Amino acid sequence: MSETLAWGERLLVVGTGLIGTSVALAVRDVGAEVLLADTDAERLGLAVAAGAGRPVDDLGEVDLVVVAVPPRATGTVVARYLDAIPHATVTHVCSVQSLPQLDVESSGADVSRFCGGHPIAGRETSGPAHASPDLFHERPWAVCPAAGTGPDAAERVASLARDCGARPVLLEAATHDALLGRLSHVPQLVASALAGSIAALDQSRTALAGTGLRDTTRLADSDPALWTEIVGANADAVAAGLRDVAQPLLDLAAALEAGAGSEASTRELLERGQRGRALLPGKHGGAPVTLQAVQVVVPDEPGTLARLLAEVAAEGVNLEDLRVEHASGQPLGIAEVMVLAAEGERLASALRARGWTVTA
Amino acid sequence: MSETLAWGERLLVVGTGLIGTSVALAVRDVGAEVLLADTDAERLGLAVAAGAGRPVDDLGEVDLVVVAVPPRATGTVVARYLDAIPHATVTHVCSVQSLPQLDVESSGADVSRFCGGHPIAGRETSGPAHASPDLFHERPWAVCPAAGTGPDAAERVASLARDCGARPVLLEAATHDALLGRLSHVPQLVASALAGSIAALDQSRTALAGTGLRDTTRLADSDPALWTEIVGANADAVAAGLRDVAQPLLDLAAALEAGAGSEASTRELLERGQRGRALLPGKHGGAPVTLQAVQVVVPDEPGTLARLLAEVAAEGVNLEDLRVEHASGQPLGIAEVMVLAAEGERLASALRARGWTVTA
Repeated sequence: MSETLAWGERLLVVGTGLIGTSVALAVRDVGAEVLLADTDAERLGLAVAAGAGRPVDDLGEVDLVVVAVPPRATGTVVARYLDAIPHATVTHVCSVQSLPQLDVESSGADVSRFCGGHPIAGRETSGPAHASPDLFHERPWAVCPAAGTGPDAAERVASLARDCGARPVLLEAATHDALLGRLSHVPQLVASALAGSIAALDQSRTALAGTGLRDTTRLADSDPALWTEIVGANADAVAAGLRDVAQPLLDLAAALEAGAGSEASTRELLERGQRGRALLPGKHGGAPVTLQAVQVVVPDEPGTLARLLAEVAAEGVNLEDLRVEHASGQPLGIAEVMVLAAEGERLASALRARGWTVTA
Repeated sequence: MSETLAWGERLLVVGTGLIGTSVALAVRDVGAEVLLADTDAERLGLAVAAGAGRPVDDLGEVDLVVVAVPPRATGTVVARYLDAIPHATVTHVCSVQSLPQLDVESSGADVSRFCGGHPIAGRETSGPAHASPDLFHERPWAVCPAAGTGPDAAERVASLARDCGARPVLLEAATHDALLGRLSHVPQLVASALAGSIAALDQSRTALAGTGLRDTTRLADSDPALWTEIVGANADAVAAGLRDVAQPLLDLAAALEAGAGSEASTRELLERGQRGRALLPGKHGGAPVTLQAVQVVVPDEPGTLARLLAEVAAEGVNLEDLRVEHASGQPLGIAEVMVLAAEGERLASALRARGWTVTA
């Protein structure tokens, strides 16, 4: 028996990749019935096997449709389901909003039953095998109504977000795209360009890189095919954001080559970066706190890191963040235990007394 | 009693900041006598109190001098000690090499007793209070002889590096600067420019940022004064590196604005980034391995993360890397437990069976 939720009883998920299957699993957990569709029969089979729902046969029973297909196809597929199911609300989970919205508006379909959505819960893996009902836990979920969207449709999508454990955030499509361009799409391309700038170096040289470069380029591991489509679907916002990052760097390069005046330019760029950085959410979204890194040498044996953290907890110190760095060529790592600055010295002394090699 | 090491018996450290004091502590640990000098009497007093050595009174006893002062002053101070102590070897620990080397060469001092050095062990804290004898543990330490450097001087600096627990890497000054420009100085400026590009946003908007932007901009927290000096002292290499990152981003912006052909440009930039990323050192400097992130919800209570890692170890799974992400506005975090891909599914099942909320 399916339960009646704020948006209805039966959900159809179109596209059973990582996000679509995770939505299905989350909604089943709150008692709804989930129907599944995918043009790829094997992927559909995996999602069914994962317990995400059953293949759809009768569209007439569906109350809400979640389209979870690649960005370029999203608007077309949404319009098709608006036409096919005359009473259903149709949403999607696309990383971009304006392009699918325009596609829906120009399709002639009933826009009043359409509302865009975007759970901000990306990861580097993909496919139904990595799906999880907890993927959206406490994450923001953008809800982006079009001008013609009816209030019922927007409220149904917000309810779906809450049923998945997420926090709905109402945004216009253009605002969403401008914002995500700067917070997600541009950082992806900047990380790739930075990593690409060392692609011609010999590996014996890159062995001298530290954690700074590794952190800054982590996003460069992402899937080029997916990101090419996301960037193409948000071209204007991404282009503007890229210019805002790249032009100051080129201006600084010119100042450094010219010699005179480069100090003021360098300092200004670094200080502006500190101001931007201060705007990012801290722990629990609260006020910024000053943390100190206590660096501890950790031999590479199962359980050693756990023992370290147990002893940190035994000292009554709460871990604010943690990072593990591996020494190049050695069976050792450095654990950076981030704690409140006021507790750093005491923790370092206590860990030394417990026999750890502490480098802070 | 001091012991005779490969470079002599008595070390003079000039400049008792984080790096200078850490060198002093490391060298005392292997039995050498350490003398200290600093123009800032308070900083010198802190270093003495930290057990780093005693203030120098008789320069005649010194075998090796380590100059650990800001980049711009380094060459001048090195030349002064080459003149003051006729038999001592003089090195430094500067993030840039060519500028101090040129300053020494043009000073008229005896270059045969000079050899530049750079322990690659940066951190975001500074001052003698954060110094540690283990700071250089298994880190690379660039040894950069000038054309006129005698073989004894280079070997003494390499011995000092080994005595500090580091791995000496012989490099020409120009090679060092070109390399560190790309691996360290450019990433710093790119992270700052990216963080700076969101400085005008409202904090309610930046709350939608995920871990990707946080990782990519972490370096933007660094000290602007120090980095302005480092960048200025490596201006040509940094300018070239900045162009190699920024020009492809501007070219892509233009392609995105023009519309046609932007897909191929986007994909090319992303794929080049993957190639550069593959050159960065993996764990233990060994062959690249495929890792999987198992994401686990961790309530924010002391000891919870330690318990999680103890249970990971109890399952016989070795932790390859770890990252902790805090959910915005909630007393919860997500621990990303990175394990070999072959072990991910089993670990996720085992942790679920132990009662954890696992999102992979």
